[in-house]
Amino acid sequence: MPALKLHPDRFFPSDPATRKVARDLFGRVEKLPILSPHGHTDPKWFATDAPFEDATSVFLWPDHYVARMLYSQGVTLEALGLQNPNADRRAAWKLFAEHYHVFRGTPSRLWLDHVFATVFGFGQRLGANTADYYYDTINAALATPSFRPRALFTRFNIEKIATTEGALDTLADHAIIEKQWPGRVITNYRPDDVIDPHRDDFVANVERFGALTGEDTATWTGYLNAHRARRAFFRAHGATATDHGHPTARTANLPLAAAQSLFDRLMTGRRGAGDPELFRAQMLTEMAKMSCDDGMTMQIHPGAFRNHNPALFAKYGANVGADIPMATDYVHDLKPLLDAVGNRSDLTIILFTLDETNYTRELAPLAGHYPALKLGPAWWFHDSPEGMLRFRRQTTETAGFYNTVGFNDDTRAFFSIPARHDLARRIDAAYLAELVTSHRLEEDEATELIVDLAYNFAKAAYKL
Amino acid sequence: MPALKLHPDRFFPSDPATRKVARDLFGRVEKLPILSPHGHTDPKWFATDAPFEDATSVFLWPDHYVARMLYSQGVTLEALGLQNPNADRRAAWKLFAEHYHVFRGTPSRLWLDHVFATVFGFGQRLGANTADYYYDTINAALATPSFRPRALFTRFNIEKIATTEGALDTLADHAIIEKQWPGRVITNYRPDDVIDPHRDDFVANVERFGALTGEDTATWTGYLNAHRARRAFFRAHGATATDHGHPTARTANLPLAAAQSLFDRLMTGRRGAGDPELFRAQMLTEMAKMSCDDGMTMQIHPGAFRNHNPALFAKYGANVGADIPMATDYVHDLKPLLDAVGNRSDLTIILFTLDETNYTRELAPLAGHYPALKLGPAWWFHDSPEGMLRFRRQTTETAGFYNTVGFNDDTRAFFSIPARHDLARRIDAAYLAELVTSHRLEEDEATELIVDLAYNFAKAAYKL
Amino acid sequence: MPALKLHPDRFFPSDPATRKVARDLFGRVEKLPILSPHGHTDPKWFATDAPFEDATSVFLWPDHYVARMLYSQGVTLEALGLQNPNADRRAAWKLFAEHYHVFRGTPSRLWLDHVFATVFGFGQRLGANTADYYYDTINAALATPSFRPRALFTRFNIEKIATTEGALDTLADHAIIEKQWPGRVITNYRPDDVIDPHRDDFVANVERFGALTGEDTATWTGYLNAHRARRAFFRAHGATATDHGHPTARTANLPLAAAQSLFDRLMTGRRGAGDPELFRAQMLTEMAKMSCDDGMTMQIHPGAFRNHNPALFAKYGANVGADIPMATDYVHDLKPLLDAVGNRSDLTIILFTLDETNYTRELAPLAGHYPALKLGPAWWFHDSPEGMLRFRRQTTETAGFYNTVGFNDDTRAFFSIPARHDLARRIDAAYLAELVTSHRLEEDEATELIVDLAYNFAKAAYKL
Repeated sequence: MPALKLHPDRFFPSDPATRKVARDLFGRVEKLPILSPHGHTDPKWFATDAPFEDATSVFLWPDHYVARMLYSQGVTLEALGLQNPNADRRAAWKLFAEHYHVFRGTPSRLWLDHVFATVFGFGQRLGANTADYYYDTINAALATPSFRPRALFTRFNIEKIATTEGALDTLADHAIIEKQWPGRVITNYRPDDVIDPHRDDFVANVERFGALTGEDTATWTGYLNAHRARRAFFRAHGATATDHGHPTARTANLPLAAAQSLFDRLMTGRRGAGDPELFRAQMLTEMAKMSCDDGMTMQIHPGAFRNHNPALFAKYGANVGADIPMATDYVHDLKPLLDAVGNRSDLTIILFTLDETNYTRELAPLAGHYPALKLGPAWWFHDSPEGMLRFRRQTTETAGFYNTVGFNDDTRAFFSIPARHDLARRIDAAYLAELVTSHRLEEDEATELIVDLAYNFAKAAYKL
Repeated sequence: MPALKLHPDRFFPSDPATRKVARDLFGRVEKLPILSPHGHTDPKWFATDAPFEDATSVFLWPDHYVARMLYSQGVTLEALGLQNPNADRRAAWKLFAEHYHVFRGTPSRLWLDHVFATVFGFGQRLGANTADYYYDTINAALATPSFRPRALFTRFNIEKIATTEGALDTLADHAIIEKQWPGRVITNYRPDDVIDPHRDDFVANVERFGALTGEDTATWTGYLNAHRARRAFFRAHGATATDHGHPTARTANLPLAAAQSLFDRLMTGRRGAGDPELFRAQMLTEMAKMSCDDGMTMQIHPGAFRNHNPALFAKYGANVGADIPMATDYVHDLKPLLDAVGNRSDLTIILFTLDETNYTRELAPLAGHYPALKLGPAWWFHDSPEGMLRFRRQTTETAGFYNTVGFNDDTRAFFSIPARHDLARRIDAAYLAELVTSHRLEEDEATELIVDLAYNFAKAAYKL
Repeated sequence: MPALKLHPDRFFPSDPATRKVARDLFGRVEKLPILSPHGHTDPKWFATDAPFEDATSVFLWPDHYVARMLYSQGVTLEALGLQNPNADRRAAWKLFAEHYHVFRGTPSRLWLDHVFATVFGFGQRLGANTADYYYDTINAALATPSFRPRALFTRFNIEKIATTEGALDTLADHAIIEKQWPGRVITNYRPDDVIDPHRDDFVANVERFGALTGEDTATWTGYLNAHRARRAFFRAHGATATDHGHPTARTANLPLAAAQSLFDRLMTGRRGAGDPELFRAQMLTEMAKMSCDDGMTMQIHPGAFRNHNPALFAKYGANVGADIPMATDYVHDLKPLLDAVGNRSDLTIILFTLDETNYTRELAPLAGHYPALKLGPAWWFHDSPEGMLRFRRQTTETAGFYNTVGFNDDTRAFFSIPARHDLARRIDAAYLAELVTSHRLEEDEATELIVDLAYNFAKAAYKL
């Protein structure tokens, strides 16, 4: 197999003058600690500090980017051993290794190579010939103390990380962590489980929501109070932000009686076809209003058609790579919420998109006007060199830098977190260097901004 | 504060070979006079030649790009003194200066720096420390004869500029100007005031329209005749073009009886929900037909959701930075108009967009087919280095250069006009240079085109 | 006229380091034979091997890219002599030559220059002064044996080419060719003539379809059997693929009774307004199911508003440059088909788009998940340097390279085929070189991929 070597100038523009500026800018942030205000690592890792199992369960099974691509190339999820306790993990790993070339040109490849080279010290590329060597080496490393979650957390130079939990979560793992690492692993309040009426367990969840909080969640008032209580509980465990993964960005601001009646219809099985969407819409505004009261930063992650592949969903459930972006509207959909709270400069609502057509058309103009709005970084499918450059090139001229919030790794792939921040910092350095060498920005300004983009903006927007 | 210096190679690609070509191309147009066929300067400035008041009323208050960005960063319009005759203008300026960094990466910053450096001779960047120095220096300059509107007009090397007036405007300022500067400040006929039934004053305006023209504008025929009369009146004051700022690009071509009945419903308060949109749609086609008769070039500027922020609109009215682009359709919406007049090669309809997804999908294909259609330059939010490059890269391959019309500064910020043309000419030079060094265009052709883009195309399309 | 010279580094990035890599990569594929799995050349050319007539009938009349652009610039189709047997062909050619500058910046110009320089050996650019020289030289060449279709086919280094025929075509020309050139000119099964109920001749075509196959096409079962029979007939003449040019990407998967009833309504004149669209939608799924049985690769080319200009259509019919792209949805529209067969890894469905907003939002995510889906190359209006770069930059990070299928020239302009493949190979080399010099791909991988993109992927996806 060919050598695996991370080039020190990777991801920088090839023009020598611009590359030099990018290199200097990146040098100022390369070693800054990582703030990870939005992600999906498992708090249990840090609570128990149990060793990770093996290469396959760490790198293959939980990574929907990887599963998606392999599946598209005809590799079945059965062959990968997904959700099979008796799977031949080495065989699954070899299958992955044999297909490693299909990741060429994707960010998965960049992240994985970074992990392989920097965390495990590999000097040869993964492939059919090195599959066993990789598998054995990784497994041996994972069995050592320095590859336990907390040791890696320190080694990865993570200052603070946020996980994401549903409204009903007990945060037991966070409670354990807090005793040992106060404040370093916090949570995000993601109440989709009690907000999305399309979930089969919606009514049951709302009932449990009442039991958890002592509120009468059969009533609209009690239901809202339960949210207030859980938000406070999450804040007590370090949460500074909420998160909302709705299919659309639709918001509503119904009169009280209409909201009550909508809630009643949903809880008593008399729902109309449009009621679930209207309820989610109403709840975004309710959440924004609560954020005005309790200071939590709000994140809206709309636009994914979840579980697009019903055969796969029936067999494997969610998050196996079958979520597909959809066209999303913000200019009309967000208006009811913005009419209510958009002019609040003490509120921070961070908008994400899977529909890049909105960057110049809607998102940058909205964030470049409303005090309450900020733009989240290039998200999910767009968390990649070209995706990040499109984000900067298409939002900066209208929204500027100061209406953005730095980088989110948004990942459950713990090992890849340094790789993702390394990539994001390099691309920001590349973009700023372009501005400098085309004389659209002075170098002293870029020097300030690269630190803002890598660290300060996330700290401020998420109140870390 | 750091130095303020405009780099002679600003906005050019950093690759040395391409930069050299861009520099040579730009050199051919740098000193060409400015044609500004579409804009929003106030003709009263040139009619009265009164001195401009001060830095705040010139650079801060009227510039919705600036107000928008400051507002998004939590600066209130109250603090900026907007629409307050007793405002502390120096305090407002200082607030602006302290926030000058938020414009990093935006075209506002590029335009303002150009004005500060070239018009006022500043050698230090604006900022908290230089706020007073800027304020005093600008105000002192504005009080001198060489900073009066007409002197600046000459200094800015403007050959011809068009302002924009509603159908009811008396053009009194233009009449004054004509006596002294024949033909250099012309108008555009923008009859939204008598075409948009969503305006509260629509019926009253149409009545006034009748009074102005001696036509019976209670009838459809009289209403159309009133347009003909005002178009002739505007032409007598130099107008060569009309302009239409509708929410959508929708057009209609109703049979006479249906058009009459629609107009009657609108004038007598019996309108249906879709009538205003249908009327605007019909009127685009009527205007296009009149253009076939009188030779006026027609401009369509669709796709802005105006006054998206009702709280701000209630307090400050229109044009304070709360207009947001919307998804726009041209392929279906323009069809009725195109069926009627799209094949006329003696008609020029210039299409603009705020929805860049249309560049490759609809606008370039339409303009690359219909003789009547041309593409206006990158507009408003897209009037920026990246926006202009996207426009060229996404339209040229299908529509070519010859279906475009040069640059519009589209501004009320008079001082920034040279800055905007400088930027546009540099970006066109950069784009042409890219084509030359990648051998997609020969240098002799680029040499011809750079003059077309900077001067000839505007002159031809607008019949200047 | 200035010199006409094809630069050896054309279309490569101007940065010297990247250019060097691009040049090396391109060198590996420059001389590879051409696979043309989707196009519109006329099989009669190769069946009869009759000489081409003259410059005007070869380069001007059949090329809708050329007609479209000239028409947009006020040149009438009458003046071009279109569909006029008595046209003054030299005069038409001179008109084209005089307007050759309007093609600056378009791929037509790049293709034409390549043909003029490499096929005819011109050393001067086409223009008013060289119009006669070009006309006479081309006509003289066309009269010689080495410019006959089969000789050019060999000279162009075409390994295999696919034409496109309707379901009712007798494939008589292919039968003639096969006797002499087995397998080198194959066909694509494009049954729009018996699938699109919006065609005036739909019912008559379906009847003829029955006569041709001996099936009772008055019934749904017989109609489907007729497709099976014709697909087999096309396969017997080398076809490995079907092609479907629907207005939208909509698919349906109706229960048998509903499909039968839909078909009956369409055949008996009792159709509802939505029936034609629903029928096309259903037929895409039927075709996909048949592909599962017979192994034919399926191509879906949606999103063109055909014959947008009714005046031109009335006079000249289809394909004179008045087809305009429309916004297209894939994520919802393809779902019924994907639910049925999307998980089949033995099926290949190649998706094309005229709406580039789908690259990152829908197409790359879909192809990067479903085993049955692959992405066709940048199509039609996007078959250009910038269009191809957008395709790669916007699809690779999510779909990778291995879910793409190489290049399609998709042309009826036979002489331009080498030019189009040359351009595509150069742009792929440019893109790969960018990845290499920014250290997102290793050079050994790019070296492998450039051959895949130029040759192997088309061979595999189309089973050539």
